[in-house]
Amino acid sequence: MVLQLPAFRRFISVANTQIRRYSAPGEGSIPPAKQKYVPTSGTYPKGFLAASTHAGVKPSNTKFDDLALIASESPCSGAAVFTKNKFQAAPVTVTRDMLKRRGGSGIRAVVVNSGCANAVTGKGGIEDAVRMGEETDKCFEDESSQPDGNGSRTVVMSTGVIGQRLPLRRIIHKIPVACSGLGSTHQHWLSAARAICTTDTFPKLLSRSFALPSAPDTTYSLVGMTKGAGMIHPNMATLLGILCTDAPIAPSALQALLSAAIDKSFNSISIDGDTSTNDTVALLANGAAGGPLITSASSPGYAEMQQTLTAFAVDLAKLVVRDGEGATKFVTIRVTNAASYADAKKVASTIARSPLVKTALYGKDANWGRILCATGYAEGVDSVVPAETSVSFVPTDGSAELKLLVKGEPEKVDEARAAEILEAEDLEILVRLSERGGQEAVYWTGDFSHEYVTINGDYRT
Amino acid sequence: MVLQLPAFRRFISVANTQIRRYSAPGEGSIPPAKQKYVPTSGTYPKGFLAASTHAGVKPSNTKFDDLALIASESPCSGAAVFTKNKFQAAPVTVTRDMLKRRGGSGIRAVVVNSGCANAVTGKGGIEDAVRMGEETDKCFEDESSQPDGNGSRTVVMSTGVIGQRLPLRRIIHKIPVACSGLGSTHQHWLSAARAICTTDTFPKLLSRSFALPSAPDTTYSLVGMTKGAGMIHPNMATLLGILCTDAPIAPSALQALLSAAIDKSFNSISIDGDTSTNDTVALLANGAAGGPLITSASSPGYAEMQQTLTAFAVDLAKLVVRDGEGATKFVTIRVTNAASYADAKKVASTIARSPLVKTALYGKDANWGRILCATGYAEGVDSVVPAETSVSFVPTDGSAELKLLVKGEPEKVDEARAAEILEAEDLEILVRLSERGGQEAVYWTGDFSHEYVTINGDYRT
Repeated sequence: MVLQLPAFRRFISVANTQIRRYSAPGEGSIPPAKQKYVPTSGTYPKGFLAASTHAGVKPSNTKFDDLALIASESPCSGAAVFTKNKFQAAPVTVTRDMLKRRGGSGIRAVVVNSGCANAVTGKGGIEDAVRMGEETDKCFEDESSQPDGNGSRTVVMSTGVIGQRLPLRRIIHKIPVACSGLGSTHQHWLSAARAICTTDTFPKLLSRSFALPSAPDTTYSLVGMTKGAGMIHPNMATLLGILCTDAPIAPSALQALLSAAIDKSFNSISIDGDTSTNDTVALLANGAAGGPLITSASSPGYAEMQQTLTAFAVDLAKLVVRDGEGATKFVTIRVTNAASYADAKKVASTIARSPLVKTALYGKDANWGRILCATGYAEGVDSVVPAETSVSFVPTDGSAELKLLVKGEPEKVDEARAAEILEAEDLEILVRLSERGGQEAVYWTGDFSHEYVTINGDYRT
Repeated sequence: MVLQLPAFRRFISVANTQIRRYSAPGEGSIPPAKQKYVPTSGTYPKGFLAASTHAGVKPSNTKFDDLALIASESPCSGAAVFTKNKFQAAPVTVTRDMLKRRGGSGIRAVVVNSGCANAVTGKGGIEDAVRMGEETDKCFEDESSQPDGNGSRTVVMSTGVIGQRLPLRRIIHKIPVACSGLGSTHQHWLSAARAICTTDTFPKLLSRSFALPSAPDTTYSLVGMTKGAGMIHPNMATLLGILCTDAPIAPSALQALLSAAIDKSFNSISIDGDTSTNDTVALLANGAAGGPLITSASSPGYAEMQQTLTAFAVDLAKLVVRDGEGATKFVTIRVTNAASYADAKKVASTIARSPLVKTALYGKDANWGRILCATGYAEGVDSVVPAETSVSFVPTDGSAELKLLVKGEPEKVDEARAAEILEAEDLEILVRLSERGGQEAVYWTGDFSHEYVTINGDYRT
């Protein structure tokens, strides 16, 4: 081996100011550059409450909250999108079954632990996840939450190490504490967002108010929290998202709204291309703000709700990219002039996953050849017309794009201008696949840095 | 950005003893650890000749040979396998057309330049590649090589920077010099293998003699050279391979033999998952050693020829992995108990391409969770039975495998034993997908190191 690792680690540890702990980020440990992404106030949906508490899922965590609870004051609609990985964690199986059994209605809560993913834990793991949901159900004492023969009303999520059983007693013991701590202030939401983190360097929380033409006098709100940062720790299972709105949406419409939003947001980001056993994004809608119920794609307000939800999910997903392991760049990849959205997205995701493109971005290298190569090997894509393909860098400051390849012909690149654009943290890569098709896809990713290798290779030190 | 790049570069340049130049590796610059892969003698096929010369394709290369020529003393059969990238370089297009036009017979030579890939060069690039072939044809003055209305008889290859036109005059000028230098000694073959390199740290040359039951008294030989190391340089276009045998194989059988061999060798390796615009492997067979002609899969000797060729191509492809950019590990990924070879190979390639698996290997981390996750997200695979999946590390010293996951259940890992296995350069990851299917695939890859990022991100320094 070429590098002497111990010396190298010392070097890294001196240079590295972006500390990642294997536990929820505590107060004050957020890197200065990331503080701007953490809100100091919010506009939260009516009838939803949040809480967090310390359960000590990992024995080494004696201090930080690692159990989060989100509750609706009344039974609500629920939908979720899950990982496609064949090794699905117990909470994924249990929550999928619960939503199916209930037809997505009568949902009351989301309970989440960090520190242990409850993945690859067999039958016992399933029992643990069921138990977490049942214990959470007990928080709600009104009639609607009494057992109705359909089992739990709680969405269960876990994130952390794979292959270990949950310390169930500690979690069960603390669920009532979380219940009694439920509240609707900004601090409640922020603490819950923090408790679901693992190696994230900052909690990811967004909220937004919006209107629907179907109820012009009503103000609706959306809140969302997520955790991600990649599967950076040993056997870590990754991305979770929880969105809640007080808009009135029936289960029949909720799943379609969520699936479409996730397709263009959480399923359009890449840190390293690896997908985990636990990835789950759930959406709850309790209608507490009133207005006419959205029941299908033809309901008044559906299209606007879709637009709002998608834009919100995109902003939330972008926070995951902002916290990508070791990333020094935030890169938007826009692929246009494709015959289909699927083609455009496949090309964008192939570019986003190319280690050669990602290391070139880290090295601030205007390397259109690597972008072109990745475009050319995207599988199952029919839209690429080599003689009509163009590649540009688009600065995010509004200045003109820098053309690197125009209709298959290399441009003489202005290296000074390229260096200027590549110096910025944010950058857009624009690929036009042809002079025809009008479909476009957008993808977000970071670069591959030395720190990425350090984080993912050297976890034991 | 966290790391101060200039300081980091200084650190790397002190620690880094594996020098990569953007030109063929000159005498004496082969890293000591790689010298064992460079043969000092060989058994070369009859009737084939090799040469190299200095053309100065890159003006900065004033010293190292960058033009290689392989010739058959008589017209021979030829076949090739090309990149599937949609942006195909001019020599790929020209060689594909040539082999089609000639039906794979009457081939005389392979001409290769390094330093410029002649990719994304439009119509002018095609003309340049055609010209290289025609100029090479002139080396052969016997009747069979006179123009016959079917154009060139030469396989043309280029490797190097994308998006630049060839310095054609310099190349054309030196092709006659290469012709006059043709010879059959080990030194001739080694110098040709060296001339096709770009950022490879050592020339990759193998030769082998073999017998076929169809001609028990005949000794046949195979020679192969390849260059690879990944698309490490700016806009670099990558993998080339040239194989020659004196066994008698008709064009009708040659393409099938080559395609099957490549599927299990060059198409079963991954450095970073990126495929280039120029990848080409060609096989020539001149029958100079005599014996009955192999014309189809039912010919005597076909099966043995396939076995010999595949094993040889595997050994040649492994040399590319040995020279993977920044790689500190040589990893064999064996996936067994699949319903089909395609399933097994897809899982193996997905594991081989996972940045999380590759960084864990660099960090010497027995991280079966990441291997399992990659297994679970391999696309279009039906063979994975989570409750029957097992993962082990198999040491290459013949000692017992270390079981990490058995039939979906995590093992208590002996960390000392894991550390011992991971300390070695060579390692096998064994994944059993089920307790049923009997198909198996083998894939070879390296790890992702800090040096990989340095090589691919910092090329300008």
